[in-house]
Amino acid sequence: MTRSIDLNSDLGEAYGPWAMGDDAAMLDLVTSANIACGGHASDPETMFRSLRLCAEKDVRIGAHPGFADREGFGRRVIPMSPGETGRLVAAQVGALQGMAALAGTTVTYVKPHGALNNHASANRPHAEAIAAAIRALPGNLALLAISGTELEKAGKAAGLTTLSEIFADRGYTPEGQLVPRSQPGAMIHDPEEATARLLRFLDTGLMEVVGADPIPLAAQSICIHGDSPTATAMARDIRARLAAAGVTFTPFT
Amino acid sequence: MTRSIDLNSDLGEAYGPWAMGDDAAMLDLVTSANIACGGHASDPETMFRSLRLCAEKDVRIGAHPGFADREGFGRRVIPMSPGETGRLVAAQVGALQGMAALAGTTVTYVKPHGALNNHASANRPHAEAIAAAIRALPGNLALLAISGTELEKAGKAAGLTTLSEIFADRGYTPEGQLVPRSQPGAMIHDPEEATARLLRFLDTGLMEVVGADPIPLAAQSICIHGDSPTATAMARDIRARLAAAGVTFTPFT
Amino acid sequence: MTRSIDLNSDLGEAYGPWAMGDDAAMLDLVTSANIACGGHASDPETMFRSLRLCAEKDVRIGAHPGFADREGFGRRVIPMSPGETGRLVAAQVGALQGMAALAGTTVTYVKPHGALNNHASANRPHAEAIAAAIRALPGNLALLAISGTELEKAGKAAGLTTLSEIFADRGYTPEGQLVPRSQPGAMIHDPEEATARLLRFLDTGLMEVVGADPIPLAAQSICIHGDSPTATAMARDIRARLAAAGVTFTPFT
Amino acid sequence: MTRSIDLNSDLGEAYGPWAMGDDAAMLDLVTSANIACGGHASDPETMFRSLRLCAEKDVRIGAHPGFADREGFGRRVIPMSPGETGRLVAAQVGALQGMAALAGTTVTYVKPHGALNNHASANRPHAEAIAAAIRALPGNLALLAISGTELEKAGKAAGLTTLSEIFADRGYTPEGQLVPRSQPGAMIHDPEEATARLLRFLDTGLMEVVGADPIPLAAQSICIHGDSPTATAMARDIRARLAAAGVTFTPFT
Repeated sequence: MTRSIDLNSDLGEAYGPWAMGDDAAMLDLVTSANIACGGHASDPETMFRSLRLCAEKDVRIGAHPGFADREGFGRRVIPMSPGETGRLVAAQVGALQGMAALAGTTVTYVKPHGALNNHASANRPHAEAIAAAIRALPGNLALLAISGTELEKAGKAAGLTTLSEIFADRGYTPEGQLVPRSQPGAMIHDPEEATARLLRFLDTGLMEVVGADPIPLAAQSICIHGDSPTATAMARDIRARLAAAGVTFTPFT
Repeated sequence: MTRSIDLNSDLGEAYGPWAMGDDAAMLDLVTSANIACGGHASDPETMFRSLRLCAEKDVRIGAHPGFADREGFGRRVIPMSPGETGRLVAAQVGALQGMAALAGTTVTYVKPHGALNNHASANRPHAEAIAAAIRALPGNLALLAISGTELEKAGKAAGLTTLSEIFADRGYTPEGQLVPRSQPGAMIHDPEEATARLLRFLDTGLMEVVGADPIPLAAQSICIHGDSPTATAMARDIRARLAAAGVTFTPFT
Repeated sequence: MTRSIDLNSDLGEAYGPWAMGDDAAMLDLVTSANIACGGHASDPETMFRSLRLCAEKDVRIGAHPGFADREGFGRRVIPMSPGETGRLVAAQVGALQGMAALAGTTVTYVKPHGALNNHASANRPHAEAIAAAIRALPGNLALLAISGTELEKAGKAAGLTTLSEIFADRGYTPEGQLVPRSQPGAMIHDPEEATARLLRFLDTGLMEVVGADPIPLAAQSICIHGDSPTATAMARDIRARLAAAGVTFTPFT
Repeated sequence: MTRSIDLNSDLGEAYGPWAMGDDAAMLDLVTSANIACGGHASDPETMFRSLRLCAEKDVRIGAHPGFADREGFGRRVIPMSPGETGRLVAAQVGALQGMAALAGTTVTYVKPHGALNNHASANRPHAEAIAAAIRALPGNLALLAISGTELEKAGKAAGLTTLSEIFADRGYTPEGQLVPRSQPGAMIHDPEEATARLLRFLDTGLMEVVGADPIPLAAQSICIHGDSPTATAMARDIRARLAAAGVTFTPFT
């Protein structure tokens, strides 16, 4: 059996003099990078540097728009109408596309960040506004959404190439949602356990959940984190274990 | 004799709850609008609203990037390298292009704002970085520069369609520079006098200067201001006087 | 019968080059001014100018902290813990106190702005955190809260001098809450009607409400608005009518 | 011979989710901490956390205001008038004083940051505006300035308690200025060499300079850096070597 999948991570999340994570290390692990666009993180210099790094490492580039809230790192829901949400996304993705043109690279997909992603995952009107914005932008952009969410559905309904991701280190509920971080089973801290779960998923298409039988989930990508030395080490470990089990890593098309 | 010229103005310079000037009134006067991109002014909502207004009034749209300094309204030089300046421009113009895609319109040219324009007018490396950024961006963007400046020269050297503007209400030095605002003759406050000067320029290609004979200047556009009720009234008056003298107004190509 | 009350208004809400309302006109009408502190509006220059204007017009100065959200003008609830809310208030009030020291004036009270005020009016832990911050700050600051709210109660419980305000132009529910802006009766647009209601309140201590008998409310101040030419005109009209009816205006102590 | 001196460092320069340096480690080394105030770095949460850490470690607290330029980390001169500079300082120091009141601590001095410090060191009107702002603020604040600068002179002329600092790792010119970072001799990278120089200075009051005989300098404090793991290690090494040579560390009064 041949098993091949994309690995994505949120990168380019520095700001001015402040670093975040070890982008160079993560870019040796992933096949797709979600690059912050100046909303929850980043600035023109950081965007350009991140895009150049992706080009050098031949990593697929996605735009990673978030609420315009650097202090909260895009993890707080800023109250906005669906229309405002779509315009936020258009401005941020447009900025990254402009930078990509200058850097000689191309943005190929969009994955919303943090609270914006969670919000659009659960709210159809916001999801539709984001999908409409992505459709209106040039470049035939794909959408990378969390498997099973309103955002994924809205992307497909809007005719976008819509790809789904699962998380290497997050527990799932029987409804296919992420276990909230405040509850037991939210995080998987052991790379061996995380990898075993991913391999079973890749073999069967069934994701293990907390307190029930595994459920079917679709995924073209696995999201791994690199925002701390521990996270980077775990990402490296998981990738190595998957590779040892015969999984290959290729960007989604 | 047929005389035809473009009229441009800086618009879309509101921010959040704060208005700036009377954009709707000015859009009835100009043929081209320089729309702020979120650097010295504006935000996604303001950009979108401004772009829609331009589309409704059939006014040509230019991007108006400036130093990322809302508090100083882009009128202070923020020290940056030429490379940083080019990246600033790419991110801001890209953001406006993204918004234009969502608004169903198109950005056709770039005119830097305030201190960024002045700085690039006098510094060739910064001018070249801006020209290179404009060239790298999609959309075959033209450059609107002040007649006779380093920015105009850099635009031409980079192979950009480069258009030149003169100011309806500013005095000129014998070297073709604007008289600094701190010196006598800097501003023309009388619309009749401003119009008469413009008509002589349109007839002869010669611009009157302070303390010397008129000099040749090239211009495809006249810049008028609308950032106060007085400025809007003067702009309306100048346009009416030019029209009465047989001048027609068409966007530059 | 002698009737005397304070009149307060939100002022100093410009930002950089952008004006908001006609502060000079409003400062001739009010006895207390709630001055923005750099959160939802303002910056050091605007703060200083506003404080100097208050000193010249002998108007009592309050700090008017809000969510750090200029784009939303402090009208959106930014999710924060109670502790974060208190720290936000301490930093903003401290900034205004620093500016007041430089301007040779003094801040005497605090009134939260917009969504921060509404949020603290309905949430006791946030109200308590704000009250605790005000108590910790130097200057023996009073709290100006909406009559009947959790914030008013928390202020009194914390031992703060706590003053209550009513609104000249807003309708009330039988529970003493403001009628939401989306419902009928939310706004009173006729100055004559607004004044008659205020006079009856000043005479009886009973506030008229929508769909029930008047209810008792306590108030040491009336809030009037000046954020548009219409609002300023209405504020002037209401004050003149109150004065004609024998009401005098004095800052609360 | 008894030799005692203050050790200061710039701390509290995180922002939102982004860390800067290892404040906890540095607070075990210094006797005074210059805490960022939300201009070039920091926010209410970071200020509060930094102030609490200083209180726990019994480290003297200084306010560290800088140009309002997070993207440039306060290392770029933002063009401002002297008056604007003073108001910038008053607002930022006031914010930190408000936070200190909430944290149960006290700000005892002010040291400007980066480009603001350099600018005020060379420009008397800006230095005077900063000194006047410090004088106007409550708390009888001292000024910590670079030895020999216009800022030091303006502080003394304004009647402020004015303390002088030297740098542990920077070379000096015969005029008592820091050797620019672009020139040879700007940085001392060897802790042994840095310590030997400091000890000779403490013994003699004479500072070694590049290309000439040592010059007299006054200093009540030594500035050490902690903005990278290397810097923290060097700071620890220098402190240990000074201690081994019998130097004691006490905050300036």
